[in-house]
Amino acid sequence: MYPIITISREFGSGGHSIGEKVAAELNIPFYDGEIVSKVAEECGYAKEIVEDQGEYSSGSNKWLDISAASAIYFQSPQDTIFISQKKVILDCAKKGPCVIVGRCADYILRDENIKSLNVFIHADYAHRKERVLAKYGDIEDVNIEKRLAKKDKQRKTYYKYYTDCNWGDYKNYDISLDNGNIGEDECVKLICDVYKNME
Amino acid sequence: MYPIITISREFGSGGHSIGEKVAAELNIPFYDGEIVSKVAEECGYAKEIVEDQGEYSSGSNKWLDISAASAIYFQSPQDTIFISQKKVILDCAKKGPCVIVGRCADYILRDENIKSLNVFIHADYAHRKERVLAKYGDIEDVNIEKRLAKKDKQRKTYYKYYTDCNWGDYKNYDISLDNGNIGEDECVKLICDVYKNME
Repeated sequence: MYPIITISREFGSGGHSIGEKVAAELNIPFYDGEIVSKVAEECGYAKEIVEDQGEYSSGSNKWLDISAASAIYFQSPQDTIFISQKKVILDCAKKGPCVIVGRCADYILRDENIKSLNVFIHADYAHRKERVLAKYGDIEDVNIEKRLAKKDKQRKTYYKYYTDCNWGDYKNYDISLDNGNIGEDECVKLICDVYKNME
Repeated sequence: MYPIITISREFGSGGHSIGEKVAAELNIPFYDGEIVSKVAEECGYAKEIVEDQGEYSSGSNKWLDISAASAIYFQSPQDTIFISQKKVILDCAKKGPCVIVGRCADYILRDENIKSLNVFIHADYAHRKERVLAKYGDIEDVNIEKRLAKKDKQRKTYYKYYTDCNWGDYKNYDISLDNGNIGEDECVKLICDVYKNME
């Protein structure tokens, strides 16, 4: 009944890792970085650009000047990437049960009437900071709180722009979990339990 | 570690029923309507008034004129009820593990550094409409959608006024669940699982 699991997440909340473990536990494919390569192939942009633009929206990025000038007549590069990304996500979903991380997948599937179990993972600043430092190391001259807030804002803006819904709003998700308080293994267990119960 | 469970919920989402079942399953006290009697006793207002004013805030209610006139010099009736309610909730929490429904309990406990497992229950309009009709019957001349939206708005305003936080915002809760999609028994199981795992 719910063959697809989508995972949306705050930056540094551990959503990627939870998604990976859920996919392993359920023995189904896991799509996160893999989507980037497929989208790059599909739309012709370099992987780095797809990665940078495929989930983040920024009011002051390198594309803005080109976009502003061309938007009246042409499709913006971000829109091209979004359209390719949508196609790749729908292709993944059509292949069968899987876990897809980020990229408005919950909205894209809902919009096509494809049932999915939609999960949102969050955590407080302290837990996210700890996780980001453990993963990427201490980055000099970078204020981690500001970086977390900026990434969240970009994801929020991107989601709003392409879905006209609010990222993180409980209405979009079947389950929202605080990974900082609940813990990764328990989050994985909960998601797998709901999934199995809904099959 | 998390002896108290607070349940916040959209009107008609089944949060009361889930809380009751969780309390029964864990064999701990359940507080919802019971709080009303205790608050009435505590502050001297009639039960009906405490029930009406203890969780809902409205821009056009019978208290407004009195409040507006007296707010400069006196404590408003709603504030008196809120203060009594806070005292009653803290008293309940201090007695030991329990489930408390609504009334900003998550915020009140957090504000006093009392650890709690905070749950938010929601469901889409169709599920809530079905539940409200099944519980209260068809009420003539009442548009159910409007009634649901109004009750949510009142709870949202009440929560914002007394906590300065946003009702339903994922940041306030450890778990948010869509009871319409997940189902009551599975919601009860998940909450009990997390609770037991955190003990």
